[in-house]
Amino acid sequence: MNISHIEHVGIAVPSLEEAIPFYENILGLKCFAIEEVADQKVRTAFFQVGQTKIELLEATAPESAIAKFIEKNGGRGGIQHIAFAMADGVANALAEAEEKGCKLIDKEPRRGAEGLNIAFLHPKSTCGALVELCEDPKKM
Amino acid sequence: MNISHIEHVGIAVPSLEEAIPFYENILGLKCFAIEEVADQKVRTAFFQVGQTKIELLEATAPESAIAKFIEKNGGRGGIQHIAFAMADGVANALAEAEEKGCKLIDKEPRRGAEGLNIAFLHPKSTCGALVELCEDPKKM
Repeated sequence: MNISHIEHVGIAVPSLEEAIPFYENILGLKCFAIEEVADQKVRTAFFQVGQTKIELLEATAPESAIAKFIEKNGGRGGIQHIAFAMADGVANALAEAEEKGCKLIDKEPRRGAEGLNIAFLHPKSTCGALVELCEDPKKM
Repeated sequence: MNISHIEHVGIAVPSLEEAIPFYENILGLKCFAIEEVADQKVRTAFFQVGQTKIELLEATAPESAIAKFIEKNGGRGGIQHIAFAMADGVANALAEAEEKGCKLIDKEPRRGAEGLNIAFLHPKSTCGALVELCEDPKKM
């Protein structure tokens, strides 16, 4: 695999409206986009920090993975996933991971926030962390 | 506050020896250091990914914050904290955060892994994520 950088860190929050002021007023970051990703049942807010984005995630339905993460976490937010930018694309990376015995959540790339192609590895194969692989189709 | 980049992402794992092969063999990253931080009761393993490091954390005692995180997480690892590199130093950032009403875990910087000065903000003020502020005293 050929990872160029950490594309983003995904942080689950109970409410974007409550969380954005911490990132803007305390940390001094700037929210540059808010986007709803209907098929993942989330609203997202993005902040750029050097090479990497922070993606805040708020659930829009109780069956959302973000709602389940927050419920398991006692109603609190927390860091939900880490997403790597794949220099040679997500499909190649998935094929290599599977060949090496890594379990996959997504067998094929699908469309995520910001128009990226994304896929998740299975936490059973990562010692617990939820790992996302990304590519920007405009740069491939 | 003046954040230059994400210094590292801290990922709790039950065992470094089980986790390192995933990061090296599947993700293709290279572990460049293993270090024990006695006062935090952890062993750490570091990987560079672009501007940012991944810090794997294994507990060395049951009272370690990492042991408690993994216990709360059903015995599984997960992403435990995000650490920002502070261009104007940690002490300045803590003073500003406190003045703006942010709760602090550490009122003053202390020594962390890799010789960095570090301090944690309180998750009650961050909507749940554990946020670390860092500076490299060699670069200040």
